[in-house]
Amino acid sequence: MPNSPKIDEVLSTLDADLPQALARLEAFLRIPSISTDPAHRGDVRRAAEWLCAELQSLGFDASIRNTPGHPMVVAHSPKGTRRPLLFYGHYDVQPVDPLELWDRPPFEPEIQDTPEGRVIRGRGAADDKGQLMTFVEAFRAWKAVHGELPSDLTLLFEGEEESGSPSLQPFLRENADELRAGIAMICDTGMYSDGRPAITTQLRGLLGEEIVVRAADCDLHSGSFGGLAANPIQLLVNALATVKDADGRITLPGFYDGVEELTEELRADWQDLGFDTGEFLSRVGLNRPVGETGRTGLEMVWNRPTFEINGISGGYAGAGFKTVLPAEARAKVSFRLTGTQDAQAIRETFRAHVRAAIPADCTVAFHGHGASPASRMDISDPAFAAAKAALSQEWGREAAYIGAGGSIPIAGDFKTILGMDSMLIGFGRDDDRIHSPNEKYDLESFAKGARSWARILAALS
Amino acid sequence: MPNSPKIDEVLSTLDADLPQALARLEAFLRIPSISTDPAHRGDVRRAAEWLCAELQSLGFDASIRNTPGHPMVVAHSPKGTRRPLLFYGHYDVQPVDPLELWDRPPFEPEIQDTPEGRVIRGRGAADDKGQLMTFVEAFRAWKAVHGELPSDLTLLFEGEEESGSPSLQPFLRENADELRAGIAMICDTGMYSDGRPAITTQLRGLLGEEIVVRAADCDLHSGSFGGLAANPIQLLVNALATVKDADGRITLPGFYDGVEELTEELRADWQDLGFDTGEFLSRVGLNRPVGETGRTGLEMVWNRPTFEINGISGGYAGAGFKTVLPAEARAKVSFRLTGTQDAQAIRETFRAHVRAAIPADCTVAFHGHGASPASRMDISDPAFAAAKAALSQEWGREAAYIGAGGSIPIAGDFKTILGMDSMLIGFGRDDDRIHSPNEKYDLESFAKGARSWARILAALS
Repeated sequence: MPNSPKIDEVLSTLDADLPQALARLEAFLRIPSISTDPAHRGDVRRAAEWLCAELQSLGFDASIRNTPGHPMVVAHSPKGTRRPLLFYGHYDVQPVDPLELWDRPPFEPEIQDTPEGRVIRGRGAADDKGQLMTFVEAFRAWKAVHGELPSDLTLLFEGEEESGSPSLQPFLRENADELRAGIAMICDTGMYSDGRPAITTQLRGLLGEEIVVRAADCDLHSGSFGGLAANPIQLLVNALATVKDADGRITLPGFYDGVEELTEELRADWQDLGFDTGEFLSRVGLNRPVGETGRTGLEMVWNRPTFEINGISGGYAGAGFKTVLPAEARAKVSFRLTGTQDAQAIRETFRAHVRAAIPADCTVAFHGHGASPASRMDISDPAFAAAKAALSQEWGREAAYIGAGGSIPIAGDFKTILGMDSMLIGFGRDDDRIHSPNEKYDLESFAKGARSWARILAALS
Repeated sequence: MPNSPKIDEVLSTLDADLPQALARLEAFLRIPSISTDPAHRGDVRRAAEWLCAELQSLGFDASIRNTPGHPMVVAHSPKGTRRPLLFYGHYDVQPVDPLELWDRPPFEPEIQDTPEGRVIRGRGAADDKGQLMTFVEAFRAWKAVHGELPSDLTLLFEGEEESGSPSLQPFLRENADELRAGIAMICDTGMYSDGRPAITTQLRGLLGEEIVVRAADCDLHSGSFGGLAANPIQLLVNALATVKDADGRITLPGFYDGVEELTEELRADWQDLGFDTGEFLSRVGLNRPVGETGRTGLEMVWNRPTFEINGISGGYAGAGFKTVLPAEARAKVSFRLTGTQDAQAIRETFRAHVRAAIPADCTVAFHGHGASPASRMDISDPAFAAAKAALSQEWGREAAYIGAGGSIPIAGDFKTILGMDSMLIGFGRDDDRIHSPNEKYDLESFAKGARSWARILAALS
């Protein structure tokens, strides 16, 4: 391991450079790269260009690669003798609504002292710009100390992660030889909730559907037609109310095919985490789990599939009241998938369930959003043990193998398209409010995150 | 009947003055008096001022009467020896959304030739500015011929009918002696669907509720919390899906208390109207009645109570997709009431039904909108027979006693507060698209409507 002796210098360089690193992150966060909103298309590209220029300044062979959607940023360090590593992150961010719930403009980041410590607040701080920059700052310090970048690194940063990554799979297929590595490092996950360092070894999959129910060919007056004409909101509501039963189980036929129970080993590890469901919910003002009866809290969020209504709209939502039967109603729903559940099969089953609730003189249209299976990593790869040790050393406590309730389709895509496993290491916290107003990232996560990557780079040399 | 000999002159005067009458109506329609939207408060007042000035110019003792909400316009003709009549209409209009479905700006009215004849198109053309002006033009022609207004008339025009008339009941109570008359004439109803003149003798009541369900204290990421934390959209959907059963019956306990079956006489009259449910629904692109099984179409829209979801919103409704568990979800719902159903009791029963679906760590808030009972008129008052004869003469076909599915709370208020019955005579058509984009009013309705009022004034002299 030629480089590892100099790891202490790399770490102290990172510490000394922290103020400049934060200034760079703030500049990155000021770019409103909301990939799901066409109005921000130009901002997404600006974020890609900013990132590409950063990487070029470090000596990476970096370029912007256009796609039918938002561009990819791809960068390579010089070839050498290391096991090739692929680093992945995303530079796009979630929408910011409801804007009125933000304490400050979401794209004017600020470092704040809070009871929980110092944070940087702004959209994308934790998901995923702040995490992505922990890679970049580690590479920067490494080069400052060694005079050269770590060899055999490929970086892939996408701009469509928050909008279903429509261009990602084609891009991976078209550039498989360029991108394939020994293992992938993905920085889009979190620490265990109490701040314990963690490697995420399983992720839930995601299936999204948009539903549009149409009845009459115009809005109707509920006085003239109410009681006789179909109400598309009622039809939609009836369909969505019956997807889950009173015990929180999803009623779609065959839905649970492929759902796997925990191994005894993982069940024991998770037990050891001492997850407190009530405390977890109390952070957001709740106290009663709503998942399937008879499951632990961690199972519900990491190892059980779900159905959620993410958005619904129809009829009059303005001030006052309007006695209207609207012409249409819409909903956006999603399923979290586990084990080997078949996303496409579930999409069809769900659509059939909705269609069965729509009378013959009304119509329903569906728009599918990304379908990704769940992922489980092969933790027998020695890189996992090496990274686990490096994390434990940096944070002064034993790193844990954990699950994630969220979906990182890229992990499944790396497996199926590039044939490699992923190591999911991130430093986000449960209270980062990702996808919500007032998103933040802990400065400790940012600083020790960069130090962690430096240690992992050394450990994998 | 001293005045009746001159009725033919009054009618020919109305015919000759029609172009000017339409110009006046267009000026009235250009004022966007949307009472439910606080942004249009000033426009509502402008409409009241326009109307008041018109009435003063005809010699009415007219004034704008302020209320905590939008103003009333009250006008009196000279005292005399006639049976006092109260004329009621409303000068406010419905919101215009969805604006993109309008073929032209809703407040730039236009006279158009259509396959169904000439119409004036614009928000409020039929509901209720066009109908209200049939009164005014009849009075104008009457005065031109007789040199004086018909005596003993009181006019009451409100500006809150489309937003629940919050100020109306207090205003009637405070001005009962000034407003009380022998009978009220209300112009906010329609002809029978095939254009047959009609007097509406029963109306459904209306109960409105707004519901806000709140769960977590911020939006949550469905990856981090999905499956464990309550989703307010799902809670709301579950509550709204169970208000009606598969047969279209409302399941709230005691809901049908006070609902009355038709008298054999009215059942026979309605049968005689030859209502074609399929044809009625086909006008709006539908063909299957959704009301209670075993009821005729006219019963469903005129004599049976209903539950409708008029609006629903929650979570992400923008472009693309957002995997969020929102902090809250909202709905606006309404019940149409018949017979002697108790609106307040039903409000409480409905709220209890919703509360039962909300877990202890979530909250639900309700905002009640106007609650008005159903109305049935006493058609033994000879004024009904006189008006029916006048209508039959003007339109050349037998006028009908019909029901209305809509709510005109004023009729119930006149009964309970002023102790008088109402005669509901209007000239709207089922295809007027009231409360919808591209609202219109037939010029035949406007012209013959004014002529009808002149005949009724003469017949009631």
